[in-house]
Amino acid sequence: MERLIVIGGVAAGLSAASAAKKLKKDSMDVTVFEKTGYVSYGACSEPYYISGIVPNPDDLIEVTPEDLEKKRKMHVFRRHEVVKVEYDKGMLDVLDIDRGVVSTHPFDYLVITTGAIAKRLGVKGEGMNGICTLRTVEDATKIKASASSAEQVAICGGGYIGLEMAEAFRHMGKEVTVLKKTAQMLMNFDPKMSSIVEEEVRSKGVKIITGVDILSFEGDNRVQQVITSEGAIPAQTVLISKGAVPNTSLALSFGVKTGKTGAIEVDLHQKTNLDRVYAAGDCAEAHHLILDGPAYIPLGTTANKTGRVAGENIGGLDTGFWGIVGTGVSKIFDLEVARTGLSLDEAQKNGLDAYATTITHGSRSGHYPGGSPLYVHLVTQSGTRKLLGAQIVGREGAALRINTLAAALHAGMSVDDLYHLDMGYAPPFAPVWDAVLIAANKARKG
Amino acid sequence: MERLIVIGGVAAGLSAASAAKKLKKDSMDVTVFEKTGYVSYGACSEPYYISGIVPNPDDLIEVTPEDLEKKRKMHVFRRHEVVKVEYDKGMLDVLDIDRGVVSTHPFDYLVITTGAIAKRLGVKGEGMNGICTLRTVEDATKIKASASSAEQVAICGGGYIGLEMAEAFRHMGKEVTVLKKTAQMLMNFDPKMSSIVEEEVRSKGVKIITGVDILSFEGDNRVQQVITSEGAIPAQTVLISKGAVPNTSLALSFGVKTGKTGAIEVDLHQKTNLDRVYAAGDCAEAHHLILDGPAYIPLGTTANKTGRVAGENIGGLDTGFWGIVGTGVSKIFDLEVARTGLSLDEAQKNGLDAYATTITHGSRSGHYPGGSPLYVHLVTQSGTRKLLGAQIVGREGAALRINTLAAALHAGMSVDDLYHLDMGYAPPFAPVWDAVLIAANKARKG
Repeated sequence: MERLIVIGGVAAGLSAASAAKKLKKDSMDVTVFEKTGYVSYGACSEPYYISGIVPNPDDLIEVTPEDLEKKRKMHVFRRHEVVKVEYDKGMLDVLDIDRGVVSTHPFDYLVITTGAIAKRLGVKGEGMNGICTLRTVEDATKIKASASSAEQVAICGGGYIGLEMAEAFRHMGKEVTVLKKTAQMLMNFDPKMSSIVEEEVRSKGVKIITGVDILSFEGDNRVQQVITSEGAIPAQTVLISKGAVPNTSLALSFGVKTGKTGAIEVDLHQKTNLDRVYAAGDCAEAHHLILDGPAYIPLGTTANKTGRVAGENIGGLDTGFWGIVGTGVSKIFDLEVARTGLSLDEAQKNGLDAYATTITHGSRSGHYPGGSPLYVHLVTQSGTRKLLGAQIVGREGAALRINTLAAALHAGMSVDDLYHLDMGYAPPFAPVWDAVLIAANKARKG
Repeated sequence: MERLIVIGGVAAGLSAASAAKKLKKDSMDVTVFEKTGYVSYGACSEPYYISGIVPNPDDLIEVTPEDLEKKRKMHVFRRHEVVKVEYDKGMLDVLDIDRGVVSTHPFDYLVITTGAIAKRLGVKGEGMNGICTLRTVEDATKIKASASSAEQVAICGGGYIGLEMAEAFRHMGKEVTVLKKTAQMLMNFDPKMSSIVEEEVRSKGVKIITGVDILSFEGDNRVQQVITSEGAIPAQTVLISKGAVPNTSLALSFGVKTGKTGAIEVDLHQKTNLDRVYAAGDCAEAHHLILDGPAYIPLGTTANKTGRVAGENIGGLDTGFWGIVGTGVSKIFDLEVARTGLSLDEAQKNGLDAYATTITHGSRSGHYPGGSPLYVHLVTQSGTRKLLGAQIVGREGAALRINTLAAALHAGMSVDDLYHLDMGYAPPFAPVWDAVLIAANKARKG
């Protein structure tokens, strides 16, 4: 019996464990160690649990630990942290957090899915009660409890999660202030596209302060105010939402290599530099098809996919993770906010000669009631007119339309190709010239 | 001043006229003759005008005749039918329908956008009042008036338009019976996918009778019942919705060639066999990229696009219509019904060795409320695993998802390529593994 140990039991970890066990049902023993109290949860749904749309933390669970054990025949240990890996011996030490006991386990294969760690500000008072980051279910439960007894909430950071959480807190009836260091909210969006989202967020009663430095937090046991370069902001709950960095310290400790992004370097099969050691999910790099190089864009989709590939290869298949194009979508209040590929800024920083075009067009036929404007922004390579990226914002039809542009990126389409796509038309769903085609037509004319 | 005459003033005709005039503002005189009383209308929205969702026939108009004249600087004649073309002389005769007067007009360029003619049954009593087909705004107005004074409505035919009209008549509070000669409703869908739609239509109180022959109509001045192989069906309004055939008789009369589909044969530029004579829209063939040959799939999108290409070429540009993949979407009661490419039946009839797979998956993350099942059906070429076609049915997210599959068809993707698409994920819009990816994963395993 071969032994697979998976370090981390969320999206990537359980995808790897399940795929490997499925392929080597009788010949592989699969054990998952997860340091939090939850496995197999939908982290992207945590804002909806905090807001109350999803009632219980258990509703975030995909597969229960019981089913993982009984149906998927793997061993799952929660609140167990792998603290040391002796690669040459094929042994690792695990701390049972609740009992304070360390045990040693042999392995033949290892999958590292240690995820990412929320960035902190590094300012005075950051350790106070009421100041949280959001990664785990425990984080979500803590934030929910804290915000329930808060009148005012401050969010430091205005990316996808920050703004999704602004919606969640407003849904809870809180006064919400978003504090953002830069002038723009969604940094990997075009400034104008981001400002459409910002306007929506403001219109829902959220106070947004941009270009602000967080200096410290003040309070007693619990935070009471955020001291900023623009003055003191009262808040009894603070969410720090500055993004995340790959959690690589354990991997580095036994010789696993990280790449230039800081995340673990993996090949097409999710294998690290060490034999029989794989990595997947938010701790690993992914191949970016437009940049033709590694990128660090930690997302649930990639975690599930890369986890599965790691597990399949351990299970004896020869499969690969072909790469990402940087697709991300979010619901921010009543807006669908979507992007794929590169922004103009990203393209230019990567040495690509590119230009951007933006159009507005209806989500439905003008004859049909209920439509709303869609903003479509395309980034096109000069000369070749190859599509490099796209962003769509609107009240309906933005999130799903981005997939067409993601497919176009995978296929290496030019905006001329895009303009000639045979897209579906019916008055309730699109105008006869879909907004994507209108955008492509503008882009191909430069 | 060169003279362009466009025969037909709806989607294709006005797209051609507008494109040519825009390019040759000062050097081309553009005249449009439309035999009905309406130009520039959204024919696909007619069911919504009949149901009352769109209040007035004028709400179906894209650009008013006044704006076409004043802003777009073209001459537009409604209720004017081109009755004779003398190609060699560059002259044509136009009948002013209301005044009964024929006038003669010279032309340098001609665009034929004579559209399609609704098929009839050819049975006794078909000329009675209350028996209608739906193509023009006048047809729609007539159907609306007739159905308003009917208790029972019968629809002969159960394609997209037949079923959209079933919804419209139910919205008007009518008893509706759909009579279909074949056992299946949507003939270019997989039987199982069609049956999902059929179940929805029945659940809304529509009576469906399949495998039935229409023998005759009975009534006095107005129809009262449909005599069928399954007995008499009472109906004071009957919609005959059996599809349409290209309206080519005028074109044929002066030497324009039709292709094997029966529609006008055109090249990449929408030019017919005759110099300076173009055709576009529902009277013309289109190049089908999957079949790599001509097809006749009359749709509003293709009409707009092919019209524009004809006009651009007349205007001096060298543009082409690259072709269709057969994308079509429809809202049928609460279902989104979408297809692209070939059905298994179409693939096999065209000599392609293919197989079909179907999956069901949620429209949203299981953690997020409000989702519903999406049915995704893929047709894959054996051996190459190339995607040949797709169908999606569901309460949300089917219509827009089909565009991703249309893009995949344009790009010649295999189902392996499709499985590796970086599709967007956020709980309100999709599960972490989108239904399209789940479908591709099943298809790639055969």
